Amino acid sequence: MSAASRIDTEVGIIGAGPAGLLLSHLLDRASIDSVVVERRTRAEIEQTHRAGILEQGSVQLLVETGVSNRVLTDGREHHGIDLRFGGVSHRLDFGQLVDASSWLYPQTDVFRDLAAARDRDGGDVRYGVADAVVDDPTLDRPTIHTTTAEGEPQAIRCRTVVGADGAHSQTRQLIAGRAQYFRQYPFAWFGILCEAPPAAAELVYCRSDRGFALISQRTETLQRMYFQCDPAIDASTWSDDRIWSELQSRVAGEDDFRLPEGPIVQRTVLPFRSFVCEPMRHANLLLVGDAAHTVPPTGAKGLNLALADAALAADMLTRAHHGDRTALDGYSARAQDRVWRAQHFSYWMTTLLHDAPNEQEFDRRRQLAELRLLTRSAAGARLLAEGYTGWPHEPLTDGTPSGAAHARVRWPLSLSGR
Amino acid sequence: MSAASRIDTEVGIIGAGPAGLLLSHLLDRASIDSVVVERRTRAEIEQTHRAGILEQGSVQLLVETGVSNRVLTDGREHHGIDLRFGGVSHRLDFGQLVDASSWLYPQTDVFRDLAAARDRDGGDVRYGVADAVVDDPTLDRPTIHTTTAEGEPQAIRCRTVVGADGAHSQTRQLIAGRAQYFRQYPFAWFGILCEAPPAAAELVYCRSDRGFALISQRTETLQRMYFQCDPAIDASTWSDDRIWSELQSRVAGEDDFRLPEGPIVQRTVLPFRSFVCEPMRHANLLLVGDAAHTVPPTGAKGLNLALADAALAADMLTRAHHGDRTALDGYSARAQDRVWRAQHFSYWMTTLLHDAPNEQEFDRRRQLAELRLLTRSAAGARLLAEGYTGWPHEPLTDGTPSGAAHARVRWPLSLSGR
Repeated sequence: MSAASRIDTEVGIIGAGPAGLLLSHLLDRASIDSVVVERRTRAEIEQTHRAGILEQGSVQLLVETGVSNRVLTDGREHHGIDLRFGGVSHRLDFGQLVDASSWLYPQTDVFRDLAAARDRDGGDVRYGVADAVVDDPTLDRPTIHTTTAEGEPQAIRCRTVVGADGAHSQTRQLIAGRAQYFRQYPFAWFGILCEAPPAAAELVYCRSDRGFALISQRTETLQRMYFQCDPAIDASTWSDDRIWSELQSRVAGEDDFRLPEGPIVQRTVLPFRSFVCEPMRHANLLLVGDAAHTVPPTGAKGLNLALADAALAADMLTRAHHGDRTALDGYSARAQDRVWRAQHFSYWMTTLLHDAPNEQEFDRRRQLAELRLLTRSAAGARLLAEGYTGWPHEPLTDGTPSGAAHARVRWPLSLSGR
Repeated sequence: MSAASRIDTEVGIIGAGPAGLLLSHLLDRASIDSVVVERRTRAEIEQTHRAGILEQGSVQLLVETGVSNRVLTDGREHHGIDLRFGGVSHRLDFGQLVDASSWLYPQTDVFRDLAAARDRDGGDVRYGVADAVVDDPTLDRPTIHTTTAEGEPQAIRCRTVVGADGAHSQTRQLIAGRAQYFRQYPFAWFGILCEAPPAAAELVYCRSDRGFALISQRTETLQRMYFQCDPAIDASTWSDDRIWSELQSRVAGEDDFRLPEGPIVQRTVLPFRSFVCEPMRHANLLLVGDAAHTVPPTGAKGLNLALADAALAADMLTRAHHGDRTALDGYSARAQDRVWRAQHFSYWMTTLLHDAPNEQEFDRRRQLAELRLLTRSAAGARLLAEGYTGWPHEPLTDGTPSGAAHARVRWPLSLSGR
């Protein structure tokens, strides 16, 4: 067995998902050296279907920091959603309500853009790297010990280590004295990809007596849909007919809305879970993205939170690089502020639309009253639209804009006018 | 035993609480004859302390329909509330948010005004009348059988019977095929009246790690306060010192906010319960107020809902009187719409501010995030302010304003300018 090869870098990033790659990209723009190590192969990540809705601020991060313009050409700008209940669709027009929009653009494409940008800019991203273990984040220069794709031991010595290693994060274990907060939900989502034309131009969030359903899109010929299910079901035992019948019954209504059907090419059960780890920093280790928090999928906040963490971490690390190491002290509190706001929003969207097993009939009727309120009160609709399209990336307390503060600037005409 | 004396009237109202008396008053204005029978004595009702916050629309009902102007002289207009959490007060300014206000004016005073107006206008209100039983609401002219205060049997033959007999309503039992919806909460309010100067000019809704507290006022020398407690406690075993200590610890914070203390002259435990009976009409019987619904006290919707029911019922009964008996068909659905909106609001205010026993720490932090959101998002603050100050009394579907539709008109300068 050969001695471990050694690498030195300023920021060692564990995990090449969107959070890790965006962070590496933003650090590069600030001329800060980083190395990204990722357990999975690039192909594996590219084939993992995940979220599909980007907040406006996330799109701006990708476009304005030079990752890619592809979201503007291949993505779809959505100007609102439908809240459907009592068999009737109610439009929430984000443009009218909050002068904002969201974008349909799958996480796999975000990953491809980020990975391609790192290639283009000569970023150091290593896929298929196993066993990443950080020795001690309290050291002045902690080391990430890994096994390369070729099976060789390797040591990456860093000034700061960033854990971007997802929901099953190992680096999280190194946050000394951390608190972990959980919430379980008594349901899951049955998600499908199907070959069919779109049923609607934009997303339809549907509350029915049979439970929640979400109608979303991918392309002109491929659609993504979900419906609330028992977490214990085995998706593989459901026939296409049974799935379509369940979906149709949930969206049925006075307007004879029907989903165009087609072959179901993928089916998965998505668990519902809320999780927060606090703090998100310990000594020379930061956590970003799912490593520090999980949200239930309703409201599509997971990917957006990961990108926001990366932008904030890039900002803090840039200030640290320029001599102000205390900048990192503020990272966790600022990140958590957005995290809990997103946790609340995700909880709200979830409880607003799902049918909790054993729920009393009173609560069903109260839920319908809440949905009606949101369609009648401009304030209520605006509160939902603000959360859905995303809160602005706020300037730091000292007035310095954070790395993503440009997201507060009005969307340039050159982009919105296309 | 003498034969029952007989009375004929158009509307027989069982219960002389605010809903029953306001209905009788509004019918009188439309020259419709009514008789009100009430089990309790007038003194008993006058001495029952209940809610103390009137929506702007409720104040307008009392003032503009000629019940009394006393709320304007003896009540206090409140321009907002404080949401207090994390030891800091956050002002919600209803004037700025929704151009509206609420009024501090105890239910006992509303009752006194209504009872005095009925006296003044020669209304037929009979207190101390026992055993009110309706024979059959499906009859063309149902009869209320009672025993007068003098112990004599009496029969009141009506065109319509209105059950305004409160949370323990007997007339509710006559709504054939009714559905009843319940929600229990795992806590109660410990309410006190104390002889002390006010701690704050307007209401303070306080969320603390020890549970909810509400600081409200009655007069310059008498205050009303509440704190969340176990429903099973015995209020009589709590010393003044213990009560003050509990209240002080719940409102304590960075600003050294303290309650001026004084003798506690009344203590009661208020149960928390949501209840709705549907429909609110069967044949020639209508229900108004607590007879049809109970809300938890957070948000102070109970009395306001009762007055809104009465205004709506008066409107429908007036149309019925003028030959359109089908007007009554719309009563239940229209009343329920407001009832469920209020149920949702009361649930929201309750869950926003109370600490549920066995709640997970995740949910406490999410609750704090929701409170912070309401202090940051004008839309969120506005949604709460809209609900608190009350939704407008909407016109009927056919465009005819309901009896309380004037509440949609801007508050007259002559009143708001005082």
